[in-house]
Amino acid sequence: MMTYERKAFYHETDQMGVIHHSNYLRWLEEARIFFLDNLGLSYKKMEEIGIISPVVSIKLDYVKPVHFDDYVLIDMKVIKYTGVKMIFDYVIRDKNTNDVMVRAESSHCFTDGKNVISFKREYPEYHKIIDDYVNSSLND
Amino acid sequence: MMTYERKAFYHETDQMGVIHHSNYLRWLEEARIFFLDNLGLSYKKMEEIGIISPVVSIKLDYVKPVHFDDYVLIDMKVIKYTGVKMIFDYVIRDKNTNDVMVRAESSHCFTDGKNVISFKREYPEYHKIIDDYVNSSLND
Amino acid sequence: MMTYERKAFYHETDQMGVIHHSNYLRWLEEARIFFLDNLGLSYKKMEEIGIISPVVSIKLDYVKPVHFDDYVLIDMKVIKYTGVKMIFDYVIRDKNTNDVMVRAESSHCFTDGKNVISFKREYPEYHKIIDDYVNSSLND
Amino acid sequence: MMTYERKAFYHETDQMGVIHHSNYLRWLEEARIFFLDNLGLSYKKMEEIGIISPVVSIKLDYVKPVHFDDYVLIDMKVIKYTGVKMIFDYVIRDKNTNDVMVRAESSHCFTDGKNVISFKREYPEYHKIIDDYVNSSLND
Repeated sequence: MMTYERKAFYHETDQMGVIHHSNYLRWLEEARIFFLDNLGLSYKKMEEIGIISPVVSIKLDYVKPVHFDDYVLIDMKVIKYTGVKMIFDYVIRDKNTNDVMVRAESSHCFTDGKNVISFKREYPEYHKIIDDYVNSSLND
Repeated sequence: MMTYERKAFYHETDQMGVIHHSNYLRWLEEARIFFLDNLGLSYKKMEEIGIISPVVSIKLDYVKPVHFDDYVLIDMKVIKYTGVKMIFDYVIRDKNTNDVMVRAESSHCFTDGKNVISFKREYPEYHKIIDDYVNSSLND
Repeated sequence: MMTYERKAFYHETDQMGVIHHSNYLRWLEEARIFFLDNLGLSYKKMEEIGIISPVVSIKLDYVKPVHFDDYVLIDMKVIKYTGVKMIFDYVIRDKNTNDVMVRAESSHCFTDGKNVISFKREYPEYHKIIDDYVNSSLND
Repeated sequence: MMTYERKAFYHETDQMGVIHHSNYLRWLEEARIFFLDNLGLSYKKMEEIGIISPVVSIKLDYVKPVHFDDYVLIDMKVIKYTGVKMIFDYVIRDKNTNDVMVRAESSHCFTDGKNVISFKREYPEYHKIIDDYVNSSLND
């Protein structure tokens, strides 16, 4: 499991007085990029060599609203990785109260901009890094 | 079924060259407000009398990416309405090709800002409008 | 002068209960793309042949806040065009009350992605369209 | 002078491959809130007691585009403070190269949600904090 920390910005609120529900998808993206960085896989460099990793599907449960100026912790783990597909699970917690705010799951593939590619076959060194991480963190 | 039309804006793209996946949640919100307006239930007025309708959960399947300047049609219907909870189903289609771009489902409740309220009990006139619509559109 | 119409979306509000001030820059961008489309110069096609038109500078005066669900009209004109540089002037008015909400001015150049280019020299047919428009609208 | 540090997020890019120009306004807002926090004036608390500080006007010069994953430093100072009006000056620099990316200036007032208020008269303790800071930093 990895944990990404994030402050809720004013410009992310809406007139309900809470973080607009679309912004959590952006926080999850930040968390994934942080995750890959931590594995030594810069998403910036991946894009530079032509790898793109779009979101295939996403699910969110909004448990409690996050407010401006609050700090959240996003606990994330890879719950499935096949070399072609990768599924992340996330829990967004309030840093102060530890309350669960949002639960989410997102599914991703890798493409060369046009077609889905197999990380396992075409980028075995990247594949190994992710695969090793997933195996070593199974019991987290 | 109702259909909301939307153009994809430049500022909604990301460096993948497509609409950023978080923006579809904003389009669905616009579609819901359009839907309520069409039933004569202005969301603006609902908020003015103290009713808030947050998103409880959401699911999205990203089938194809939408590009800047494309027009999409969002077909939406209420697939469940209990007077307390309302579930919408959406299909975002390309207006030109009719291709399905995104499928989504979102679940909502009504609150007074603090607690969940029953539309059926506390706003029977609003409840009737939605309930009548849902019943009349069952075979859409 | 051209006029672009726009509805203020819920997801564009912040917890002050008004449209977040950053979003007007997005509306102005939409207005410019609408402007170019109306002249027969699709910005989408311009980018496809390698022309990019970044914002060089921008000024905004926030006169009154726009609220969710309000319709605004953005009156815009080109106040300077040299073939290399283009300056737009905008007034955002409330469609209902005609009140001025925001005044703005933005300055743009054209680039090939790296270097500034002269529309006049390198795209004379595009240059002529804009130049003719500017000359014909001087007395608007 | 105070300096706010910020990473450029993927979701802030557009299809030009750079940070969308509207997002710098959001970064400046984050910087102002950081600035007030550092003075012991939480903007969150200010809003809770009914003080709102809207943007009155803004100017930006886009010198160079910021890219995804880059770190920037936002140097900011108050160049005018009257107790009613406050003007900030900002320079956004690339953390790595020290290049100036954006220069900006923003003007603000304080309101009770309806009318402009004088910080000097109505919140003398807040006024003193800002005034002392401005006086002590004149030679920065």
